[in-house]
Order: sequence, then structure tokens, then C-alpha cells
Amino acid sequence: MTATDRAAPRQMKLVAFLQAANCSNYPASWRHPHTARDFLTPEYFQRIARTLEAGKFHLAFFDDRLAMPDRYGDDMEEALRQGIRVVKLDLIPLMTAMGLATSRLGLGGTYSTTYFEPFHVARVFATLDHMIGGRAAWNVVTSLNDSEAANFGRTEHPPHDRRYDRADEFMEVVLGNWDAWEDGAVLYDRDRLAFADPARVHRLEYRGEWFRTRGTFTVPRTPQGRPVVIQAGQSGRGREFAARWGEILFVVYPSLEFGRPVYRDMKAALAAAGRDPDLVTICPAVYCITGETRTIAEEKAAHIEGLATELDTLVLLAEALNFDFAAHEPDEPLTAGDLESMTGLQAIRDRVVQQAGSRPTPRDFVNVSRRGTVREMPLFVGTPREVADGLEEWFEEACDGFVVAATHIPGAYEDFVRLVVPELQRRGIYHRDYAGPTLRENLGLPFPTRGDWKRG
Amino acid sequence: MTATDRAAPRQMKLVAFLQAANCSNYPASWRHPHTARDFLTPEYFQRIARTLEAGKFHLAFFDDRLAMPDRYGDDMEEALRQGIRVVKLDLIPLMTAMGLATSRLGLGGTYSTTYFEPFHVARVFATLDHMIGGRAAWNVVTSLNDSEAANFGRTEHPPHDRRYDRADEFMEVVLGNWDAWEDGAVLYDRDRLAFADPARVHRLEYRGEWFRTRGTFTVPRTPQGRPVVIQAGQSGRGREFAARWGEILFVVYPSLEFGRPVYRDMKAALAAAGRDPDLVTICPAVYCITGETRTIAEEKAAHIEGLATELDTLVLLAEALNFDFAAHEPDEPLTAGDLESMTGLQAIRDRVVQQAGSRPTPRDFVNVSRRGTVREMPLFVGTPREVADGLEEWFEEACDGFVVAATHIPGAYEDFVRLVVPELQRRGIYHRDYAGPTLRENLGLPFPTRGDWKRG
Repeated sequence: MTATDRAAPRQMKLVAFLQAANCSNYPASWRHPHTARDFLTPEYFQRIARTLEAGKFHLAFFDDRLAMPDRYGDDMEEALRQGIRVVKLDLIPLMTAMGLATSRLGLGGTYSTTYFEPFHVARVFATLDHMIGGRAAWNVVTSLNDSEAANFGRTEHPPHDRRYDRADEFMEVVLGNWDAWEDGAVLYDRDRLAFADPARVHRLEYRGEWFRTRGTFTVPRTPQGRPVVIQAGQSGRGREFAARWGEILFVVYPSLEFGRPVYRDMKAALAAAGRDPDLVTICPAVYCITGETRTIAEEKAAHIEGLATELDTLVLLAEALNFDFAAHEPDEPLTAGDLESMTGLQAIRDRVVQQAGSRPTPRDFVNVSRRGTVREMPLFVGTPREVADGLEEWFEEACDGFVVAATHIPGAYEDFVRLVVPELQRRGIYHRDYAGPTLRENLGLPFPTRGDWKRG
Repeated sequence: MTATDRAAPRQMKLVAFLQAANCSNYPASWRHPHTARDFLTPEYFQRIARTLEAGKFHLAFFDDRLAMPDRYGDDMEEALRQGIRVVKLDLIPLMTAMGLATSRLGLGGTYSTTYFEPFHVARVFATLDHMIGGRAAWNVVTSLNDSEAANFGRTEHPPHDRRYDRADEFMEVVLGNWDAWEDGAVLYDRDRLAFADPARVHRLEYRGEWFRTRGTFTVPRTPQGRPVVIQAGQSGRGREFAARWGEILFVVYPSLEFGRPVYRDMKAALAAAGRDPDLVTICPAVYCITGETRTIAEEKAAHIEGLATELDTLVLLAEALNFDFAAHEPDEPLTAGDLESMTGLQAIRDRVVQQAGSRPTPRDFVNVSRRGTVREMPLFVGTPREVADGLEEWFEEACDGFVVAATHIPGAYEDFVRLVVPELQRRGIYHRDYAGPTLRENLGLPFPTRGDWKRG
């Protein structure tokens, strides 16, 4: 039975993966001729938002980094020259601007539990959710990078697992604040001189190991109840965290084979955490390069591949792995100690070791990364039908939707929306229009009840 | 010689004083029939912004409070019922929305040096400055309130003067980050594969007592060089801080007599700090109630006065003075110890003591505050000509412009813009149009050079 035969076919969710700049996480993306230059204006971001809304994307979300990449050569020089994520604007003004230029597209942003206060995160995302009519989402990250720590005067990061314990408390404070005002608590009754009903506004009174707050929260409940939570933890403790809190789970599968058990395990982890696995959207990141014909698509892919240099890939890898590749010759085999010291996205390192042996060189890192594209995201290249075939296969076996990353912005999204989206809609595996004005409605999530996130 | 006789008459600056809600700092403002209700939407804030821009206001700025008032009776119950600043949205989405609905109005927001990180403050205001074309301002506060501390899990505030020492470092980090990218550092040169010029992007490398940062800042220099700094410190150490950093100084003069020496002393403090006093705008806060005739204006004032209750005034005073008035009977004389324990805006307390004697009652606080309106701001009531007379007198003797507070929003600004602004323009003491697109241009400030804020 194919999806289109069903009475109510399962439909995929689509999420765009943005950066607060015009450098995507594809190295050299800024050099692409279909990359726009006006990235320091609201028009740049609003244009992307309108394109995505025309394609009925559920959500656009921004990653974040609170520093310039400076692991390579212990300096930011090459990152600046190569244009590797050196500009990172704050997300909130961008999301506001995009939200005001659209009416249905969800807008998500990354704020770190390490460098922000939970009261602030709760307040700024709740405010945004009001201003854009219930379409905000928060991508929770615990941060992992020395460059960020250096910008905030922290000498080192807490160990991985403890970071998640702290993040659990952070979530309890954020969600507790979002629950402070009941629906209808604002009365605005001039005759009875009652602005709000004190019986329907609650103090959090939270006392944890890391966080304490009286919790007199200053933002009434938002149009979708509260912002949607995005989470990307995929490792042991990270997966536990994601299963407890995430409503959209951002995952990275280098291949479908890799993805099948991850998908099954994450759904099981959700059930084990007492949650309904069907209400959590699991989305692997993918790149898609498409064109009118297969030859055009392949030429586009080759052109994009040709934009990247060994150097920009190494600068990006230095940041992702928290490791200074400049301290080694391109063909120097790295030691076990070198590999051990890579504290960032260890999945990348593990995959390089798997493919190039136990003592890979910096150049091996470049070559293996290139094959899957940096960060291990798969690349679908072909006609709209071929790309849709690939997405459909993954969707049926290993995910609920996709985080569509861009080789360049806005060109890659314009191609995707014009060519691939209609094909997905024709197959019935993607919605033809939004279900409603709020992000929760479009994700098929019920309006949240207060405290529904609390454990057992 | 009057102002209009001069070749280039001195002209006043106007700043609107907003809150991120529809409760102004005038108690009971939300009960006024000319107060709008849709304050949880962008349209509410955008409408205010358009009104102010029609009146050529230089700037609209928001105060902030990171907690609900809960000093009165150690609970937020009465604050909620009376509508005393219980809603406080985050300012950044609001300023973005207002900036996108206007093209010349400056937009300022308060972020605390106590509860935010300097990297974040620098980044979010720089981003905003890009998104609204060089019209952003940051109002620096060091925070003074136990309710805020309780929301952030802090047991107590540092002593007043040490708070300013720390805030000095905070400023050095923020301004240092704003100076990180030189003008023209973004090359975007696809042919030479150069995104930015590493020679024109600098690390801050700051090591202070409170803050350390490598300072790899991720936002290029903004359209007006950097956001404008607003400051309100008026006491000893606070005035020193304001004289060092402030570009717009927000002051409170209960009377013209009070204001004259304050103005003179602050200008002297600016010169002593090595700055050009003419480039710093000193603005006292004022309320203006105007109408077609004097009788209408007086009726409006009486109507507004009648909206307030003793209770809402006490809730507001409890917060402003960080003192629980509910622990005392309305006519109970307070002790010297009580008065000593008021750690908030001590100018209010001192004025009550001055007018009502050394053991004032809670009711004395209400009555004295009412006379000058809470927070000691003067109230000009009359025809547009009478209000303009009052403003002109103050402007000629004790200030460079005004922070126009509102008894209710947006009604009070609509009245002011339609009735008072044309009269000020007719007299030549207020501009008829904006000088340019950026806030600095409209304030008559030169484009800042990197490091111009550094001492000696």
C-alpha cells in the first residue's frame, strides 16, 4: 500500500535550515551566484520567508554560534577570508521580521542553555510567539565549542552529561514560566478594576541544583499555548534529553541504513519517556540539488562542489570538531590522542575513522566529509521526481519529515519550492496548504495543557 | 533674544517613554478609555511608532523590568488586579516590529547589565541596528529590584557603587565588540575568494575583574556605526557612569528649580569626563495633558487623576522603593529604619520626607507622589500653547529635550503629536523633519570612530 492509497495519508513535515547570515553550513555557499548579498537587511530574510511559505514549509529554523570560528590556527583569519560562518546575527530580530512578512510559516531559533538565562529565553520566545501569532519555536542546544566559551569568559565547558542535567533544569524553568499565566487570565475589566485574575497567574517557585527562581513571569500565555521545542540530541544522554523535551527532533543520518535503527530507537525512547511518539516529528537533515533535467541537476552539483576549497572545509571541520587542523600537515596521520581530543560532533570523526582507517589525515577528513557533505548530511541530486523518490523512500522508512539544508541561499530553496514541492504534493505525501495559523496546528499538535510536560 | 531669532536655533529632542505592555508607568493608565487593548500584537506597537514618527519624535524607548511587581504584600496579587506593570514583553521583537513600520524613528530598549551577558547585549542591539537601518539605542540599567533578583535566583544585589564598577566593564566589552569590525571589512569578493578582510576585523581580548572575553564578534559594523547609548544615572556614582557613557541622558526633575543645577552639573560632569557636552542630550521626563481648550485639558487631567486608586499607587511605590507598604497601616508613621530600608529610587523617598516630615505615612507617600505624579515627573496641563510655554521654558534653562511619558497609550501621544508638536515647530524650537535616516544623524551626532569611547 502506498501513502496515497490511504484515507488520511501520512504527510511529511518540511523544515528549512537557516543561518543568520548568507553563509549556509555548506562551505563556500556565499560564493554561489544564486546567493543573495543583502544579508544585513530585513528584506533578505523576509524574501526567504516568503519563498518558504509559498512552498508551505512548516518551519524555518536558524542555528546559532556565539563566536566566530577560530579553532583553525587558533585564529579567525582564515574563517573571515573563507567566509565560514563569521557573521552570526542575533536571531530574534530576524525571526520577527520574517514573521511579520508571512502568516503561516513557523519560525524557530537556537538559544543556548549555557549562555542564556532561562527567564530571558522564556520571555523572548513567548514575546515572539505573541508578535507572530503563535508560530515560534525554540531550538535547545547545550553548546559544545571552545570559541563560544572564550567569548563568554568561561574557561571550559562542563562535561557532556552534566551539561544535560543542567539543561533539564533549564527546561523546567522555561516551561514552568510559559505555564505561569493560564488562558484567559487577562481580564481587562475596566468596570471591576481588574486587569488580570490573580487566581489564574501562578508563581513558579523553582529550586533546583543550578537554577532557582521565584518565577513571576511577565508574559501571558501565547496564541499556541507555548512555543514549540526543537531538539537535536542524538547521543546517549542527549537522546534521553531529546525524548523528554523535543517536539521536533533534528537528526543527522549519513544514510538510510544508518537512519532506520535511529528512527526506531528514538520513537522507542519517546514512548519510554511517556510521550506519544506520533506527536513528535523526527527530521533528518538533507541537501537537495534539483533542476529541469538530470544533467542540469548534476551540473549544478558539480558547480557547487567546485566552489569549495580544502581550506574552507578544514576551517569548518576545525569548528565542528573543536580541533585545530592547522597544527598538522594535510597528509599527516593523526594520532589516537588527536582523535580523542576532538570534543565536538564526534559522529563526524567516527565516520572518517570508519572510512579512512584508525589514523586519518586532515585531507581524509576533507574527502570523507565532502562525500557526505560536511556534517554528514545526505545529498539528493536529480530531477524533481528523482529527489522526491529519495525523500519518499526515507520518509516511509526512517523519518517524519526533513530539515532541508541549503547549498546556497535563497537559490536552493527557490529551486526546491518550485520543482520538488509540487511533486511531493502530487504524491499526497506533503500538504497542499497549512492547517491553521499556528505552528502547533500545522504540526498536528494539540493545544498544550499546563504542566503536561511534567514527569509522571 | 528668543530661539527663533537665531540663525541656527537650538532645537529640542523628543523621546517617547514606552512600556512593553499597555500599562504606562502612570498608575491606572490601562483603565483609560483612550488606551488600546491589543497590546499582545505587533499592530499595537506599530501604531504607536507611526504616531510618533508623524510627530517627528527622535526616539521611542522602552523601560524594562524582569519581574512582576510583588513587593506589596510580598505577592503579585494586587499588582495583577490593579494592572501595575505585570506584563513586560521582551523589547527586541517589539522594537523590530516598530522599526519595520517606520523609516526614521529611533528605537531604544532597556537591557540590564546585571542579568544579561555583554556579548549578547552587543550582538542583539547591533543586529537590531542593521535590521532597522541604524536607528537602535540601548538604555543601560544596572537594576535595583529584589523581584528581579528573585526571578534570576540571585539572593541579593551587589552594593550600589560596585554595581557601577562592574557596569563600566560591561560597557567596555559591549563597545569593544561594536568596534570589532571596521567599516568596509565585508568584501564579498567572489573572484578573490575573500568574504571579509581579516586585517579589518579585530579581536577584543578583554580581561577585566568581572568580564573576560576573547571577543570574536559576529556582527559587522552597523549603519550608524553603533547603537546610541541611553543612560539614566543621576546619583553620585551613577552620574559619573552616565557622564562617561551616555549619549542621551534620561533625568527626572520634579521642578524647574530642581532641574537647573542638575543640568549644569551634568554638563560639567560631561566636560570633566573629557566629552563634548553639546553632543549629549539631557532629557527630563514630563507628562503633558492637552486639549482644544484649557477646560478640556483640565477635565482630562481630572479624569485621569480619578482613575487611580490608593492601592495601585502603593503597589507601584512598593516596587519603585523596594519596600512593602502592605506591612503598614495607611496612616502609620514609618520609622527611620523603614525609610532606611527603601533601597530603590531614593529620590522619591527623600521628596516625601521633605514635604511630609521625617515620619511619613504610606498615605503621605501616595499623596506626595500624586502631586508630582509617581516617580516625580512634572505634569504640564493646558492648551497646546500653554504646554509649549512650559516645555520651552524648561528647554531654555535646564534641558536639551524631553522624555515624554504617557498618562495612557496611545491616546496621550496622539494628543501631543496633533496639538503640541505643531506649536513647538511654529516656534522653531523643534525640527519640522528628520535630518536623515539614522538616529545619530537625527541627534546631530557624528558617525563614531572606533575606540572614541576609550578613556584618555
